[in-house]
Amino acid sequence: MGERELERLFSPRAVAVVGASEAPGRVGRIVFEQLLRSGRPVYPVNPSRQTILGVPALHSPAELPDGVDLAVLTTTAAPAVTAAEECAARGVPFVLPVAGGFREAGPAGLALEERLGALARAGRCRVLGPNTLGMFLPHERLDTLFVEHGDESLGRGGGVALISQSGSVGTEALGVASNSGFGMRAFVGLGNKCDLDELDMLRHFAADPGTRCLAFYIESLDEGRAFLEEARRVSPDKPIVVLKAGRTRSGALAVGSHTGRLAGSDRVVDFAFRQYGVQRAQDDQQLCDVSKALAGLPPARGNRVAVLGLAGAYGVMGADFVESEVRGVQLEMARLSPATVERIRRVAVPFAACQNPVDLTASATDAMFLETTRALVDDPGVDMVIVSTFFAPPGMTEALVEPLAEVLRAAPKPVLDFTLYGPKTDACLRRFHELGVVGYPSIERAVRAARGLWERACILASLSRRAR
Amino acid sequence: MGERELERLFSPRAVAVVGASEAPGRVGRIVFEQLLRSGRPVYPVNPSRQTILGVPALHSPAELPDGVDLAVLTTTAAPAVTAAEECAARGVPFVLPVAGGFREAGPAGLALEERLGALARAGRCRVLGPNTLGMFLPHERLDTLFVEHGDESLGRGGGVALISQSGSVGTEALGVASNSGFGMRAFVGLGNKCDLDELDMLRHFAADPGTRCLAFYIESLDEGRAFLEEARRVSPDKPIVVLKAGRTRSGALAVGSHTGRLAGSDRVVDFAFRQYGVQRAQDDQQLCDVSKALAGLPPARGNRVAVLGLAGAYGVMGADFVESEVRGVQLEMARLSPATVERIRRVAVPFAACQNPVDLTASATDAMFLETTRALVDDPGVDMVIVSTFFAPPGMTEALVEPLAEVLRAAPKPVLDFTLYGPKTDACLRRFHELGVVGYPSIERAVRAARGLWERACILASLSRRAR
Repeated sequence: MGERELERLFSPRAVAVVGASEAPGRVGRIVFEQLLRSGRPVYPVNPSRQTILGVPALHSPAELPDGVDLAVLTTTAAPAVTAAEECAARGVPFVLPVAGGFREAGPAGLALEERLGALARAGRCRVLGPNTLGMFLPHERLDTLFVEHGDESLGRGGGVALISQSGSVGTEALGVASNSGFGMRAFVGLGNKCDLDELDMLRHFAADPGTRCLAFYIESLDEGRAFLEEARRVSPDKPIVVLKAGRTRSGALAVGSHTGRLAGSDRVVDFAFRQYGVQRAQDDQQLCDVSKALAGLPPARGNRVAVLGLAGAYGVMGADFVESEVRGVQLEMARLSPATVERIRRVAVPFAACQNPVDLTASATDAMFLETTRALVDDPGVDMVIVSTFFAPPGMTEALVEPLAEVLRAAPKPVLDFTLYGPKTDACLRRFHELGVVGYPSIERAVRAARGLWERACILASLSRRAR
Repeated sequence: MGERELERLFSPRAVAVVGASEAPGRVGRIVFEQLLRSGRPVYPVNPSRQTILGVPALHSPAELPDGVDLAVLTTTAAPAVTAAEECAARGVPFVLPVAGGFREAGPAGLALEERLGALARAGRCRVLGPNTLGMFLPHERLDTLFVEHGDESLGRGGGVALISQSGSVGTEALGVASNSGFGMRAFVGLGNKCDLDELDMLRHFAADPGTRCLAFYIESLDEGRAFLEEARRVSPDKPIVVLKAGRTRSGALAVGSHTGRLAGSDRVVDFAFRQYGVQRAQDDQQLCDVSKALAGLPPARGNRVAVLGLAGAYGVMGADFVESEVRGVQLEMARLSPATVERIRRVAVPFAACQNPVDLTASATDAMFLETTRALVDDPGVDMVIVSTFFAPPGMTEALVEPLAEVLRAAPKPVLDFTLYGPKTDACLRRFHELGVVGYPSIERAVRAARGLWERACILASLSRRAR
């Protein structure tokens, strides 16, 4: 399948909602209302109603006009399959059945799902799902998720395409987004994957100019080899991070009961991923944290990290996290040049620690913090900087946010922010995010993201060695 | 030193603030205002003012009336030492110098700190600090922290005494508290520890009836052996969790520049702690998460965990986390009895997964969730339950919170909550906390807390074996 074949799925000219409803709380109502907000023509299909929320209803997909590129099917399983067949007959190229009750529900459900798969195999239409929350593309204002989620404005302008077998991993990521900024280009829930799968998404978003990093939550992979081959092709241009759940015996068994598929051996998966230029995440938070850094920061040239803060404890913990090897990826604490140390000493209070980790103490001011950040960014022996902002001490104010963001954005190396807790933390993290700063609410997560950047550099080096 | 000797420090009849000020943002003003709210007599000491915020000011500690048990010294280092000497002369038993600029600032600062230490050694007064944020005891309304922190009401009724060399670890914990509930009995920042140290706090809070778990953030320990001996005495009655920072070479070096002390070898510390019944945490979040579970839940009888959720992915990840051994502590996924599976099947939707991890799917309702929780709690093959609440699907409502909390509180085994992201998550976590439920905002953190409960059970068994 070519790169552009899914363009109409993610940028449909018009949309149909089969099972559209006025009943509050019903999926058919939530999806319909959200799609109305996208600014596209939306056609409600409901055989027993004349209008839905004032929009004339069609009685069957057969009545749909030309130009409907996507039909979201919000009914239960059996009627959704019939609707999919009717949509395909009407020439709708993409259907999105959201209901559960398919493969995961036993033989009758499997038979229903096979009818959907047959439609796709016959080339009559493509199917996203079933058993999925669907998708959310902030830049298209396209949202079929039928659970409440965070403020979509936070997703705008982001570069991460998050593809997930599980819808809840997506809503959790959107929650992260609304708390502290994430930068989502697209969320796609694949559900039971009777047709469209990770490989299709990898191809599509690799070619999407707005996507700068691809993140996957995967429980099982039918076309593992093809996915990895494609990943190796994509990886030199765009980083790929995968959370492969079902790492343990019980986890793998749980995948079976959850999706009706068997998960592969974890060790085989781990080994294979590295070979093919794919970074792994151990949980959904790490998946999002690392993707956010990869999408938003320049590449790391080396593994030497400088840590700047106002609280000695977080410098110590930061150093501990930096020097703890994780899955073969080893960061180091940078050794600052004498010129850098002198430059910091000139602005800091006398009892500040001017070696790495730098501790400006609670007596720090905006001006001290800014100049010290500049000194660390300028030091050629520093490959990445973690600045720990903290807006509780009297000398640290919100006025620091904009000029600091400017320094961070202009830096030719990755600078990550960790904002210590305070009443203004979330607001500052969101503002940082709007200003293009990659920030985290814990030192461990900031270091984990830095480790992801260094792992990316190692993967690029290893792919280019093999290519030579 | 006896167990009751610090009672007046943490429950002073009257308090003095040396360096009290009216200048907005000054430490002397913040501390003075906060102490006024405690309902005790508070005496501002300031030689150049007649009143401070309407309260008559004293010109010197020599003028303090009888009954002042604590003097908070908010001036810079040198005047604070003079004030400490004057307070001691006046018979004030406890002084709390907050300023930096002592041992960590070089020879002159060290000389100042030695004068404070000499006061204590001579038995003239006890010193908390210097270089500390001080303390926060919600039940006493006693708060000397001079950085903004979370809503103190959230700390009320808690059982965790958090003792920290670093003040920022405390404010970070208070941030956690205000986000999702923590349950703090006391926070004490030890700072440079020229006199009062971890051993004093261990003795005091071990004897405090309101303290159910002791949590320590430690960078260096002068009396390591005595602390561990005391810990072994306390541990059979109250759990002790320690975050020992400076685990790595750079971390240990950073401790040196931060506090002027050398940290011990990490491996020695790790081994010794286990022997003496102390649980270790790797970061401040784990310190708080594990302490909260230990303070708020019944003991774990075994290591078999059941996971209940509405999102297959979090069941799979939960199983992965449960079965991943961490530092020798191994949890297992429980095997549910046929009766339990049948009981769940009777209430669940047909395509729910009724084995462990139980996945009620997004079609779950309050009633399904409640009955399934009861079934898991009743299963004798289940030692701990993690319920993953999620208030986004239409059938899951806030009406579940109170009856679910009732089931969890009545359970004779630990039940931990993990609340998936949604617009209501923080509010639900706070309400759960008020109702005595121990909840976390990520599955990894809930499992980590469960692992802490099982580690506690192993420690108790090992201590009692050795005692026989």
